[in-house]
This record gives sequence, structure tokens and C-alpha cells, in this order.
Amino acid sequence: MTKSANTMWGGRFAAGPDAIMEAINASISFDQRLASQDIAGSRAHASMLAATGIISDKDAEAIKEGLLTVLSEIEAGEFPFSAVLEDIHMNVEARLKDLVGEPAGRLHTARSRNDQVAVDFRLWVRDQCDAADSALLALQKALLGQAEAGADWVMPGFTHLQTAQPVTWGHHMLAYVEMLDRDRSRFADARRRMNTSPLGAAALAGTSFPIDRDMTAKALGFERPMSNSLDAVSDRDFALEYLAAASICAMHLSRLAEELVIWSSAQFRFVKMSDKWSTGSSIMPQKRNPDAAELIRAKIGRIFGANVALMTVMKGLPLTYSKDMQEDKEQVFDAADNLMLALAAMAGMVADMSANRESLKAAAASGFSTATDLADWLVRELGLPFRDAHHVTGSLVALAESNGADLPDLTLSDMQSVHAGITEAVFEVLGVENSVASRTSFGGTAPANVRQQVSAWKERLA
Amino acid sequence: MTKSANTMWGGRFAAGPDAIMEAINASISFDQRLASQDIAGSRAHASMLAATGIISDKDAEAIKEGLLTVLSEIEAGEFPFSAVLEDIHMNVEARLKDLVGEPAGRLHTARSRNDQVAVDFRLWVRDQCDAADSALLALQKALLGQAEAGADWVMPGFTHLQTAQPVTWGHHMLAYVEMLDRDRSRFADARRRMNTSPLGAAALAGTSFPIDRDMTAKALGFERPMSNSLDAVSDRDFALEYLAAASICAMHLSRLAEELVIWSSAQFRFVKMSDKWSTGSSIMPQKRNPDAAELIRAKIGRIFGANVALMTVMKGLPLTYSKDMQEDKEQVFDAADNLMLALAAMAGMVADMSANRESLKAAAASGFSTATDLADWLVRELGLPFRDAHHVTGSLVALAESNGADLPDLTLSDMQSVHAGITEAVFEVLGVENSVASRTSFGGTAPANVRQQVSAWKERLA
Amino acid sequence: MTKSANTMWGGRFAAGPDAIMEAINASISFDQRLASQDIAGSRAHASMLAATGIISDKDAEAIKEGLLTVLSEIEAGEFPFSAVLEDIHMNVEARLKDLVGEPAGRLHTARSRNDQVAVDFRLWVRDQCDAADSALLALQKALLGQAEAGADWVMPGFTHLQTAQPVTWGHHMLAYVEMLDRDRSRFADARRRMNTSPLGAAALAGTSFPIDRDMTAKALGFERPMSNSLDAVSDRDFALEYLAAASICAMHLSRLAEELVIWSSAQFRFVKMSDKWSTGSSIMPQKRNPDAAELIRAKIGRIFGANVALMTVMKGLPLTYSKDMQEDKEQVFDAADNLMLALAAMAGMVADMSANRESLKAAAASGFSTATDLADWLVRELGLPFRDAHHVTGSLVALAESNGADLPDLTLSDMQSVHAGITEAVFEVLGVENSVASRTSFGGTAPANVRQQVSAWKERLA
Amino acid sequence: MTKSANTMWGGRFAAGPDAIMEAINASISFDQRLASQDIAGSRAHASMLAATGIISDKDAEAIKEGLLTVLSEIEAGEFPFSAVLEDIHMNVEARLKDLVGEPAGRLHTARSRNDQVAVDFRLWVRDQCDAADSALLALQKALLGQAEAGADWVMPGFTHLQTAQPVTWGHHMLAYVEMLDRDRSRFADARRRMNTSPLGAAALAGTSFPIDRDMTAKALGFERPMSNSLDAVSDRDFALEYLAAASICAMHLSRLAEELVIWSSAQFRFVKMSDKWSTGSSIMPQKRNPDAAELIRAKIGRIFGANVALMTVMKGLPLTYSKDMQEDKEQVFDAADNLMLALAAMAGMVADMSANRESLKAAAASGFSTATDLADWLVRELGLPFRDAHHVTGSLVALAESNGADLPDLTLSDMQSVHAGITEAVFEVLGVENSVASRTSFGGTAPANVRQQVSAWKERLA
Repeated sequence: MTKSANTMWGGRFAAGPDAIMEAINASISFDQRLASQDIAGSRAHASMLAATGIISDKDAEAIKEGLLTVLSEIEAGEFPFSAVLEDIHMNVEARLKDLVGEPAGRLHTARSRNDQVAVDFRLWVRDQCDAADSALLALQKALLGQAEAGADWVMPGFTHLQTAQPVTWGHHMLAYVEMLDRDRSRFADARRRMNTSPLGAAALAGTSFPIDRDMTAKALGFERPMSNSLDAVSDRDFALEYLAAASICAMHLSRLAEELVIWSSAQFRFVKMSDKWSTGSSIMPQKRNPDAAELIRAKIGRIFGANVALMTVMKGLPLTYSKDMQEDKEQVFDAADNLMLALAAMAGMVADMSANRESLKAAAASGFSTATDLADWLVRELGLPFRDAHHVTGSLVALAESNGADLPDLTLSDMQSVHAGITEAVFEVLGVENSVASRTSFGGTAPANVRQQVSAWKERLA
Repeated sequence: MTKSANTMWGGRFAAGPDAIMEAINASISFDQRLASQDIAGSRAHASMLAATGIISDKDAEAIKEGLLTVLSEIEAGEFPFSAVLEDIHMNVEARLKDLVGEPAGRLHTARSRNDQVAVDFRLWVRDQCDAADSALLALQKALLGQAEAGADWVMPGFTHLQTAQPVTWGHHMLAYVEMLDRDRSRFADARRRMNTSPLGAAALAGTSFPIDRDMTAKALGFERPMSNSLDAVSDRDFALEYLAAASICAMHLSRLAEELVIWSSAQFRFVKMSDKWSTGSSIMPQKRNPDAAELIRAKIGRIFGANVALMTVMKGLPLTYSKDMQEDKEQVFDAADNLMLALAAMAGMVADMSANRESLKAAAASGFSTATDLADWLVRELGLPFRDAHHVTGSLVALAESNGADLPDLTLSDMQSVHAGITEAVFEVLGVENSVASRTSFGGTAPANVRQQVSAWKERLA
Repeated sequence: MTKSANTMWGGRFAAGPDAIMEAINASISFDQRLASQDIAGSRAHASMLAATGIISDKDAEAIKEGLLTVLSEIEAGEFPFSAVLEDIHMNVEARLKDLVGEPAGRLHTARSRNDQVAVDFRLWVRDQCDAADSALLALQKALLGQAEAGADWVMPGFTHLQTAQPVTWGHHMLAYVEMLDRDRSRFADARRRMNTSPLGAAALAGTSFPIDRDMTAKALGFERPMSNSLDAVSDRDFALEYLAAASICAMHLSRLAEELVIWSSAQFRFVKMSDKWSTGSSIMPQKRNPDAAELIRAKIGRIFGANVALMTVMKGLPLTYSKDMQEDKEQVFDAADNLMLALAAMAGMVADMSANRESLKAAAASGFSTATDLADWLVRELGLPFRDAHHVTGSLVALAESNGADLPDLTLSDMQSVHAGITEAVFEVLGVENSVASRTSFGGTAPANVRQQVSAWKERLA
Repeated sequence: MTKSANTMWGGRFAAGPDAIMEAINASISFDQRLASQDIAGSRAHASMLAATGIISDKDAEAIKEGLLTVLSEIEAGEFPFSAVLEDIHMNVEARLKDLVGEPAGRLHTARSRNDQVAVDFRLWVRDQCDAADSALLALQKALLGQAEAGADWVMPGFTHLQTAQPVTWGHHMLAYVEMLDRDRSRFADARRRMNTSPLGAAALAGTSFPIDRDMTAKALGFERPMSNSLDAVSDRDFALEYLAAASICAMHLSRLAEELVIWSSAQFRFVKMSDKWSTGSSIMPQKRNPDAAELIRAKIGRIFGANVALMTVMKGLPLTYSKDMQEDKEQVFDAADNLMLALAAMAGMVADMSANRESLKAAAASGFSTATDLADWLVRELGLPFRDAHHVTGSLVALAESNGADLPDLTLSDMQSVHAGITEAVFEVLGVENSVASRTSFGGTAPANVRQQVSAWKERLA
């Protein structure tokens, strides 16, 4: 739309009022994406009108056949959308009239564009919940692949981007599987909540025709008709809830993308993106710019921007339909397109990337990363209170640091000079492999745990 | 915090680095609101440490008793919070040490501030989901009271703030009951999703102590422990999802508030706010400024602003804990306080307001509001296609308008001059009372429907 | 782009990595809007390369001629944009090579896509500042037309949407002229601040070629070259500042649009939109839905949403160029298109609308709107302290209200029963015409003031 | 306020309507921060009322003296703010009445709370523009100190967080000096634009008293009175523009903070934060968590969140004053406090941090960072077209990479095997010191340039 609007307004102030009004008012440039939903809604409506005797079976048949023809024309790219006919509803109905004549004029009985667009858009957003679920599943599987391969690869666990404790690659990958599962759960809740039918609310007050709203609801896969006609045509919660779920999901992607960008730096070298998911330089062929990761990281901007946009639009709107609400679609379309693109790109990138086990392990083993293991040993084996154990550990770290060494490099007598009770057994907890292996509490990073979690996820996602 | 920071920075650039660092770093000025959650979490942790043999029963008892003392000091307003001790966790633990001595040093075994704050804040937000549910219920009941009283009061149904069709006051009130019910459902879903325990994730990797995370989870009312320790300390989805639900709820309030402001104008006179919920003027005692409605309308700003703030903070944060995440609490506190205030004010205002039945009905009866009733009659009784019926109706409206009259004022012969088939029976559908009574489709505005819905809601909300 | 992406991802997960990467990476679908800026920048660069002896005059001439050919192909709509060539820069250069051969390979000397895109986009945004200025001027003139016609039409001045004091139509229109003038001033400041040239920053470090950045800056209308090459390629302040100014402007439009929607209601009837700027109903021909006003009101959503989107993208990006920044353009394009559309529609709508003088005046004269005039009279003529005068006025209003009358309907003895000092002269200040005429303080609503302001504005905007 | 509201709503639904209304309506808990501005405004108003003969000199003197007393009570922390008196204006006036009696009742002549609060808040925001300017200057100086010390320290210039070309530390520091200067310029423009006086707009329509608005404007340091009384009381542009400038500034800080966090990692080791600006760990004393940098990075959240909040509040508000606008202050207060804190912390942190020259240089010298220098040499010395030179360079990089070496490690004959024309002279451009020294184009990274820029800035900021 952007482009056509731009062309139209090239000589902006020359445009007459009619052209400006058409440009701001017509929605066909974008709501044509609702064509298949619009036709499905109209076919369900026609069947119901016949079943309740409001129109004849013959008229209903003609309408339903004609609508299929319209759909095939649209799918074939042969449909001449017209801005004069403003929106997808009028475009479809006008073409239906060409095709089937008088019965077309009976389709809109007991219906209004207000409930019609509410149905169309709701169906579209419902589809997007399903699409997001599939794409999230695909990304979970890619992460699971990484987790399985590297269930026992040791890497630094960071806080403040500082090495804190060793963890496993598999454990880190699984953290994202968890986040994405909450995303799926949010989309599922949103889908369930939006899955009620506004059809039959008519303009806003319901209708005096003896319609059967349960029948159309069922035909369109809705759980039930909405209970209040004013609410049915005023509500855009479903779009906002989709955008909120998409925004949190995009936030998760931004965190993983940020890690991939940092991990791809020459200083980290934790991962190597495949050629497919990075761009090079004609002059520096060794370069692997993590463009895909950066673009994914950025997508939260437009997705959450769309959420802000629609919340702002809806703020303070009196019931029921106001034309402001026409601004809902482009925001959701753009957010959904970009979420799907980001998820697909992330899944491809994660599946193809290679972790550098050596770099990961070397990083994990530096920075006194097993200091807490030492402290926990002092508590567990020598019975020191936690706070005292921390104090002793701090002294040992300081001693090692002053020697230019790390904890495992201290001698037993070094150790005992700080706390006499320390024994040879302490050295078992100072290696990173031992450290991670010991974290067997539920949800902990031990390879055994990770393998169990991978298994459980594989079964669940199968 | 604002105030103390301001005081502190009165001579901003004179402040030494230590003062600036303390001001930006310490959280005790706001996280003291987590005191009761912090103590509940610590008590559950101490019980578990004893049950698993990590600390002695005696130490656990001393700790748990001591924590109750701390709690009672805080509740009595006698606790000396210290910014030097940075946060609520350290403040509580330091005081515990004063009270019980050495055992206090054992409390933090197999735990870290990372999982501790995650538990505390999650418990706090979970409480807010419950509080929002109660406040929404109270507002639903207030609306239901209005709906019951005015199930058959006729008012204009608006699109574009133009009269479209007559509806009933009760039906309009029930539209908001529906919206608020979706809000409740969203808070319930958010609560369910957040109701898993991070406790035991420790710093980020889990622990080598033989802790029992199911036990602490159960003690704190969580459904289960979180499955991944990195995720457990990195996750702020629960806060974001609460804010998203609160924002949509605030949007609903902004719509009702906008209607109340417009309806209170001298031009509409649809409702009269009670004295309690409006402010007057010393000079114009008849004035009833709808201040409460305006303030409620505005609350979406800060609530959604908080959502934006926290999404922005979380964008692109690498795992696991980063200090950026300390900015989560004030946003949620402020949003929650203001949501609760707005809901309580709206409930009070709605319960106390008086609809002006005469103004409502007069407005409903003007503006050819029964034109669609006429068109539907032509379809139903004379078998005209919908589009043709609309054309005939348009001509009749034009005729009435040229006479300076409304539709019911036309004579039968006026009518027949436009379409010969029209009969006396048409007049039955032209009155607003008849119009609303005829909209009996499910979800429609007919008083009978409204009464049925009111009944159903009363039962459901009982 | 939305559409093509959608088509591409119809069978989303079937798409191979290459297709996904191309879809997320290529920018040609939107950055082709920078074609004329890109070519202007390249022509300036080529001239400079020749002037400094870096390339030959002959090569420069060939390049510059070739670029004009490319431009004419693009303007004619005959240019075959290619997604494989990713962006506008590569598309133009590739076509240039076809046209002029070897010299094309010399154009990119001492330049990089990093400074190239920074120049292109900056030039585009600079143009939008100028376009916004023109459109704002046109709207100011439309408002001024209304203000001049209605300099002395009395209407209610509202606070809280309650009648407070009478004001004049012209004064109300001029309030928006003031707001729009601040908008123009903000765009002018933004334009001035962004008017520095990044060209010559090269990839990020500057170059060892003896380039003349002043020359290219001057050729492109920039005030001077930017002083730091890292900043030059990292900076997107100009886009953010444009969006911030556009957002505040859209907020002003939303306020005026809201007023027009309310004023068009059957209850207010303050204004009548012309047919061109409202939509009717096939069935209710008298209906004038203020669609244009509603759509303008809504535009703040997407414009400020774009601001949020780009702020979110830029948050926390390390220097210098990151691919995230590619997300800048679509946001600004969409915001600019919609701002221009909203301004043009508002100008047309305001120019064509008719105020209803009778409704305005009747509304102004009700609601004790001259109570403050009475209080001021008591202060001025009887020397009462302001607070006492308010007290007396309150009693008089209460008395009038209990009589079912307004202030001018009270008798002198009524008045004197409340305050003995009141004289016949008081009645002069109780009429709305007198009230507005008396507000002659600078910036006040008196018709004389309004006429003076209209004059001053006409001169200034001429 | 948060805290008091919370206390108040501890038993939320038990609170009676009066308590709820007071809680949502009263602003004294936060607008007491406007006390000094309120008193300054009232003193200016009183002087003007006397100068124009509206009140007596004696009354004015009493009022002005009394106000000074009130101010001293507030500054001493002895003023008993009362929520029943709602706001700062009523609190001050009530106390004034206690102090000086009857004349206090004359102060509010020809004024209203609408223009009073507009003056107070505008003065407060104006002060914040000045405060931001000072704090930005201090941060510029800290950066300049770093730039001067490290004008010739070589470090990697990054794109996509990948090494692209060597640059100098000083040059990188100066990039932020540039950004901050644009910030200062934005605050200066905002200050200039907001520096007009609403005082005298009265409730909304101006006044019939012969006030002198130029006099009060001048007394309060405003450039001139605002020209339209409706605009004067409706306008909150000044707050929004401040927030927009603050948001862009916070974005800049987030970028530098992100760099500092990354640079502080064990993998980068580019900088070391001083003890004052990092936090340690009781157990890992070598740890230096960059808490201050992380908190600064996060501040963009709440600052831009405040911008979103106020934009949302202002969307669609009819003129003139609506109570919604009371939500403006807390947002601006919180944003301003946090901006000042972030700027002060960043200045302290930057001044104290130590760059690690060896790490920086080693990083700069790896990754074929001088490949573009080689390509430029081929263009400059051998006359190759840029695109051909890039091709040759790519082959040389590939050759070096296959040798496990970097460019300077290739032999001349290696070089000549790819392009026969290459001479010994080429090696001069392959070292990072030479590379940066050669980038002498205006704005380039050469140490000579950096020193010149540092000099120029020192003079300018002196």
C-alpha cells in the first residue's frame, strides 16, 4: 500500500479531495488478504440463511457456487480488485452479482459489514495462531537437535555477560525450548479465547431474522457465537492479544539473536553460522556477518510497534464500530509476516550453526567459574555455614589470583593455609566437567538431566 | 524512589561516585514491597533444607521463627531498611542474623539471589492476578446492576458516534461485562502459566545439594518447579504477560470512560455521575466534572507505558541474569497500583451513576434509527432482496427528511408511493421499542435477551 | 513487501533456507524508494572523485550520464529491480555497469554502502521535513479560513467536555494554528540538525583517498560534512527525530479529529462535514459518518508505533553499522506516507466543513457559562477578594438553578438578596457576546483579538 | 505515591468511595515537586496584579512575603502537605491564607489553576532541559578525556560486531561526543520552543482584567506570552518534546552501555571498569559485574515508556483542559530523575574506566582488518577499478587464510602471484598503525584528525 499511496501522493497537494478521501478511506489494497476468509464466512452465512428458510435453497446454492468461482479467480490472480468498491466485502459481492445475478442481493440479509469484517479478520488471526505454533515447534526441534548433540558440552553460564558457573550447551539450548513453549501456550490461549463467532451480530444490535448463529459458528470452526452483539462488532481483543503474544515471542528471539551475534564475534568464537545464514564481504572472504541474527533481533521493533499502534488506536473509542478500527489489519499483517519470517530464519540458522566446543570449554574453565562448587563443598563436607564458606572461598580465589592461577592450580597446602579442614577430595569439584555433572537438582545443568529433558521434549514434540 | 533520588540529586553533580552508584544500584526503596513474599520463600526454603537434611531441624526452626519476627517488624513499620544492604533479600537476612545468629548464615545454602528474587516477584505478580480478578468481578457486578435496572431502556446504538440503531441500556452495559470477562480469563491464563517455581535454580545452574524443589514449589502454592534453571532466573515473561493483560483491560476501561465523559456532556445528558465521582466548581455548583472518568481513561497511558518499558528492557538481553532486569519491579508495581485504582474507581462510579432514560430514548428515536428495521421488514414480508430493500428504504428516508419528519411520521400512502406493496403492518417495526424487542437473535439487544443474559451472568458471578 | 513476503511464505516451511534468507535480507522491495536520492548521491560523489583527481573526468562523465539514464528508467517504471542484487545501491550500480562498462567499477572508490545508505536515507527524510512543512502550512491556512469567517461566533469553551466559559470559533481554530506552528518549528529544527553529510565516512573509518567532503556536502545541499566517520554510519537520530516530530503532530491531529467526531454527533451538531469528507449509508441517506476524521484520529497509532519500533531497534546497538538498522526505512516510509495523507485529508475536511452558528451559540449560553464573568465583575466593581466573589457567585448560580433558570434570568433583587452591592450594571457581563468581547487580555478570546491574530497569521503565512 | 497508594489500598475493596476518589484524584503526593515553581509563578503574578492596579501594592507585598515564608517551610521539610487540599496550588494558597489572611484571597484574581499548573510544569521542564545540558556536558568531558588519552590507540572498528577496519580509541570516544552534542542541541531547541508563558490564559479564555502578560512572562524568564489562551492551557508539547529528546539521549546511552558490557567480558577484555562502578561477588573477588552499565542500558525502557505513556494520554483529548492531563507529571518526573542518574553514572564510569591497549590492538590486527587498505592501495597505486581491486584483495585474503596467516604475513611473491603489479610498498599499508594513520579524510580515524577534533571540542566545551 505504501508504494501505491506514495505514487498517488507524488504530487500530493495537487490531488483533489476525492483522491485524498479514496486514499485514506479504501482498504482494498490490504484487506484483499482476507479474501478466503470472507468467502468462507459468506458461504456459511448463505447455508444458514437457507437452512432457516430466510432465503431459498436455490438462491443459497447459486450464491455458494458463485463464491467458489470468485475464490478461484482471486487465487488465480485474475480478480480485478477495485478501490472504488472500497473493501474486500464489496469487491466480492459485486463480482458475485456479475456471476449469479439477483440471488447475490440476498446474501447480505441479516448481516452487516460490521460483523462480516469481524468474522473475516478473526479467522485470519486464528490461522496465524496456528501458523505461529507450527513455526515455534520447528524452532524448538532445531534447538533440541543442538541440545541433544551438546548435552555435555561445557560452556560458561553468564550473569552480566561475566562467567559465573559452568553449564552445558544442551542446557542453554533447552532454556529457549522452555521460552518458546510458553509462547506456544500463549498463542493457544489466545486462539481459544478468540474462537467465538461474531457472525449474526449484524450492524450492532442483532437482527429480527430467525438466524441460527450456532450453525454458522460451527461451520466456521468457532466454539460458539459471541453473546453480545455490541461487543461482537466492537471487539479487537483478539488482534491485540495475538500481537502481545507475538511481541513476547519476538523478545525471546531477540535474546537468542543477541547471543548469536556476540558468540559469532572474533572474541567469543562460540559458534559459527553457516554460509547460508550469514553474509560475507567481497573483500574479506573469511567474514561471516550474522545478518540473519541481526535482522531477527530487530524484528521485535516492528512487531511490538504494531502492538503499540493498535493499542493507541483502540484507546478511548466509544462503542461500537468506528472507522479508526480499519487501522487494525495492516499492523497485524505486518507483525505476523515478520514473526513468521523471523521464526523460519531462526530455525534454519540454529539447525545449521556449529558450536565450537573447544572455545566453549576454555571459556568455561577460566574466571574461577567453580568457586561456588568449592563453597558448596565446604558447606557439604565441612559443615560450614554458607556465608562462612563463601568467605573462605573468597580468600582462596584471592590467593589463586595473586599467583596468576585458577582454583584447580592451588596446592592442597595452599588450600589448608586458608582453612585447615580442606582435604584432597576438594579437587574433585574444581574441574568444570565435575562441576556440571554435580548439578543434578531438578532443572539443573548436569548432562544426565539434560539428556532426560531432551528425551522428554522429543516425546512431547513428536 | 523518585523523591528520594531527587533529594539526593538536588546538587546532582556534587554527588560523589559512591552516592551515584548507590542511587542507581540499590533497589531497597522499591523492592521492600516484596518483603512478605521474600519471607514466605525463605521459610519454605528453610523447611526444605531441613527435610532433606541439608541443615538441622533446629537451625530451620530458628530461621523460620526469626523470619516471622522480621515480618512482624516490617508489617508494624518498625523495620529499618538500609540502602547500604541494597535490596530486600540482604536487609531481611542481615536482620535475621541479628535475631538468630549463626543459623542465619545457613539459610542461603543451595540458593542465590537470582532464584530468590525470581520467586519473590513471581509471587507478587501472582497475587496481582488474583487482585485483578476480584476487582474485575466487582466491576462486572456494578455493570450488571445497571444492566438489570435498564434491561429495556432504549438508547441509540452508535457507529462513528452517529446513531445507527436503537439498542437497550442493559445490552450496552453487558457488552462491557463481556470484555471484562475476557480480561479475567487472560489474567487467569497468565496466572496459570506463571505458577511454576524458580526456587532451586540457584545462581543459574542448579545445585549439587540434594534439594527437593517439588516441596518448596508446593509450599508456595506453585504447580511445579520450572524445568530449566537458566530459564528460571532469566525469565520475566510472567511480568510482561501481566502487563499485557493489564494493558488490554485498561484499554477497555478507557473506552467506557470515554463514553461516560461524552455522555456526561450537556449535549448528551445520557448519564449523571454522582457527587462522589465528580468534582464541582466553587463557582459553578451545578458543574459535575467527570474527573474520575477522565483519570481512568488516562490510566492506559502509564499501564501500557510500563509494558513498553519492560519490553524495551528485555529486548536483546543475553542469558541469564543481567542487572537491567532490576528495572522490572517499579514498572509492574506502578501499573498494578493504577490498574487496581482504576478498577475500583470505575466500579464505584458505575454503581452510583444514573442514566437519564428520557434523553436516551429521545436520542434513540431520532435520526431514522429504525431504517434497517424497515428494510428488514421489506425483505421479510415482501420478499425483496436485501439490496433492493435497502434502496426502497433509502427513498423513504429521503422522503421523510424532505418533510422534516422521521420514518414513523410518514403516512401509508407516502410509503406506498415508493413501494406499492407496503402495508399498515410496517408501522409496527418503526417504533424504537418494537425495534429493540424484535432483535431476538442470540446476542441481540431485545430486552428479553438482556434479561436472560443478566440472569445467566448473575448465576455465573455469584 | 508484505504482500510478496506473504506469497513467498504461503507454504512457509517448505521454503528452503536460501529463500528465507533472501526474504529476510533483501531490502530492494522497499529501498527502491531511495532511487533518486541514491543517484543524486552517486552523481555528487563522481563529480568529486574527478575534481580531486581520484578518477578521470571522462569516467566521471560516463558515470554521471549513465546514472541519469538509470534514473529515467526508474521513473518510467521500466527498471527491472532484482532481489538477488539485494538493495537499491547494487541494483543501480549493476545497471550502470551494463550501460557504461568499466567506469562503473570506479564509482564506489572511497565510498561504502554504509555511508551511501546513510546519505540516501537522510536526503529522503530531509525531503519529508519539507513536505510536512508544506502540508502543515496548507492546513494552517484552512484553519485560518475558518477562524476569519467565525472570528466572533460564540461557542462553548470546554474543560472536561463540560461547558466552562464562552469562547469564539475563531479562537478555537487558532489554537490549532498555534500547535501546527510548533510542529513546523520542530520539523525545521530536525531538518537543520540532520542536514550534515555522512558521505565520505566510507565503511566507518574514513578513507586514505584525498576526497573533498565539503564538495559533496555542498552539492547535496548539506550544511557541512559530519565530523566523525563512526558516528556518520551509526547515526539514525535523524529518522527518530523525524518520527518524534511526526508523532506529536499526529497527536495534534487526533485531538482536532476527536473534536470533529464529537461535534458531528446528533447531540452536538456543531459542525457538518461536507459530503466529500464523510461517508453515507445506502439506507440512511441523511447519515454523515465522519470517516475521514476517524481515520485521521487513528493515524497517531501507526506513526507513533513506527517511532516505538525504531527506538526499540536502536536500543543497545554497538557501533557502527548493524544489519538491524535496515529496519529503519519501512517504519519511516509508512509513517511519512500516513502523516502526509492525514494532513491532506484534514486540510480538505477543515476547508469544507460548516460550523452551525446557532448550535454553537445556544450551547455557549447554557450551563451558567458566564459565572466567572459575574465573579470577575464582583472583584472588579465591588472590590471583593477573588475567593469571596466566587462564593457569592456560587450562591447566585444555586439560586438560578433552583429557579430552573440561568444567570441572566435572575432579577436584580434576586441578586441583591445574595449580595447587596450588586447593581444593574452586572447584567452587561452576563451575556455570552459581552463575555467574549470582554476577554481582551493578550491571547484572550475576544473577537477583536481573534481578528488581530488572524491578520498577523495571514501575513506570516503568506 | 506508589507506596502510599499501596498502603491505602491494602484492603482495596474495603475502601469507601471517598477514599478511592481521593486516591485517584489528588495530585499533592507528586505535584509538591512543583512547589518552588508554583511560588515563583504566584509571586510574579502578584507583582503584576499590583503594577496594573488590580490589587493594592500592600496586598501584593503581603502575598509575596507570605509566599517566601511558605517556600522556606517547604524547603525545610516542615510543610504539612494535605491530600484534602488536592494539589500544590491549593496547599500553598491555604497556607498563605493562614499566614497573611485576606490578601491571600486576592492572589487568584485573573488566574486559574489551568494556567497556573501550565506555568509551574513548564518551568520545571525548562529547568530539566538545563540540567540535562549540564549533565551531557559533563559526560562529553569524560569522553573527551578518554579520547585525548587514547587518540592513537588502535582498536577494531566493528560492523555486525565483526572486525571491519582498525580505528582509534579516541575516534570511537568522539563518536559519542557527537551524539551527545545532538542531544544537547535537541534539549536546547525544546527549551527555546517551550519558553513562552501560559500565565494569563486564565481558565481558558483569557480575562477581562487589564493584566500585563509580558510582565509576568519576563519575570519568569519566558521569551513571550503564548498567543492563544485555549492552546496555552491545552498544550503539553513541551513535556512530550522533552521526553522525546530524553528518549533519544537514553538510546545513545544504551549503545555505549552495551559496548561497555561487551567490552568488559572475559572474551573481549577491552576495558576494565573501576571498583566504584562495578559490583563484585563475595565469592569471586576478581569479578567486576558492570552493574552500572547494565542499569544505564535499561533506563531507555522507563524513559521511553514515559514518552509512550504521555503520548497515549494526550491522544484524542478535546480542548481544553481534561483531567487526563494530570497524568503528565509523574511520567516526566520519573524520566527526568532517571535520565539525570544515568548521565551522572555514565560520566563517572567513563572517567574511571581503563582501556586495555594491548587487547584492543591485538584485536584490531586480526581478522584481515586491513583488507580495504590493500584494496585502496591497488586502486590508488595501480589504477585498478575499485571493483577489480576488491576482487584481487579477496584472492589475497583467501591465500593468507589458507596459510593460516594474516595479510602482513604474505610474501611479496605470494602477492605477485595474484597480481603481478604489486610492489614492496604495499606492506606499508598493511599494518594497523599505518592503516589508521592513513585515514586522514575529514572525520576519519587518523590520530592526527582525532587530536584536532579533541582540541576543537575542548575549546568548544570550555
